[in-house]
Amino acid sequence: MELLEERIRKDGVVKPGEILKVDSFLNHQMDVELFNRLGEEFKRLFADRPINKILTIEASGIGIACIVAQHFHVPVVFAKKAKSVNLDGEMYTTKIESFTHKRTYDVIVAKKFLTEDDHILIIDDFLANGCAVNGLIDLIESAGATVEGVGIVIEKGFQQGGRILRQKGIRVESLAIIESMDDRTGEIVFRH
Amino acid sequence: MELLEERIRKDGVVKPGEILKVDSFLNHQMDVELFNRLGEEFKRLFADRPINKILTIEASGIGIACIVAQHFHVPVVFAKKAKSVNLDGEMYTTKIESFTHKRTYDVIVAKKFLTEDDHILIIDDFLANGCAVNGLIDLIESAGATVEGVGIVIEKGFQQGGRILRQKGIRVESLAIIESMDDRTGEIVFRH
Repeated sequence: MELLEERIRKDGVVKPGEILKVDSFLNHQMDVELFNRLGEEFKRLFADRPINKILTIEASGIGIACIVAQHFHVPVVFAKKAKSVNLDGEMYTTKIESFTHKRTYDVIVAKKFLTEDDHILIIDDFLANGCAVNGLIDLIESAGATVEGVGIVIEKGFQQGGRILRQKGIRVESLAIIESMDDRTGEIVFRH
Repeated sequence: MELLEERIRKDGVVKPGEILKVDSFLNHQMDVELFNRLGEEFKRLFADRPINKILTIEASGIGIACIVAQHFHVPVVFAKKAKSVNLDGEMYTTKIESFTHKRTYDVIVAKKFLTEDDHILIIDDFLANGCAVNGLIDLIESAGATVEGVGIVIEKGFQQGGRILRQKGIRVESLAIIESMDDRTGEIVFRH
């Protein structure tokens, strides 16, 4: 998606350790006008799928998922990290390893919000090794719900997450796929 | 706001320990159509204020803040709990005690996203003892920015957070204020 690639080139910063900082518009400060353009594109890409719910994971997926959901006219459920005393005992759980935070989280969704009648679009800001998305798929499969697809804003194409998901037959649509990036020159090459 | 009160009466569940569960539409599953009605109302209430940015805190404030931001045509910044390796050293920090999770978090905002030129509307899902909002105000004051107001979806009027903020002269607009609630009968009384 050209608009997004332009924004990444303009405002993204490549850091050592294969980190792309896009915190000025995607995952700390959030440009909701841009998110609406992303939402339109996800709706175009998944128009043929009978999606009735969007699933994401806290925290940085939530804002994007909510704006995207407007274009599908469906509710959003976000998987929560760790247990809250506000949640009933009835929940699906999985474990997700975070690339960013270098730790493992217990992730939960209340059973009443994921059922076998649900057709789910997973939305997240980044796809790298795929741990978050695989955890969400695990939760969806525990509920007997259907994964209709995975919508990602930025995929690190040089990591294996996207390839493995697509090999499993899961439809993954990433609005920008980074082929390579160089923290010395700041250069970012996109896959097309 | 009548629409919101009706929804709380219909789908909210009162639990022991002064807990109101609204996870079917507000803070686990999220009804983005409802969030848009809340956004219209916040815009009406704060129409006279020169708001150029919305500040919230992860995780449950983010979805509401993003939908509300569309009605103000401004970006959202969310304060993050704990330190991420993706963040630069340049950040404002404060400590926030969580009523829900019964623990204290370090909360941060990158300095580049809060400046003395900013006129901030704080948005959050709940106001109870006011710890989260007071932490966000602390971050805003550290930056020399201006707190234009605080927009809350549900205020627990029987806790002290709202009263203390208003006594300080801060404009707090809560779309539903709970006067009292009873976990035995499930009754919820709103303040008008």
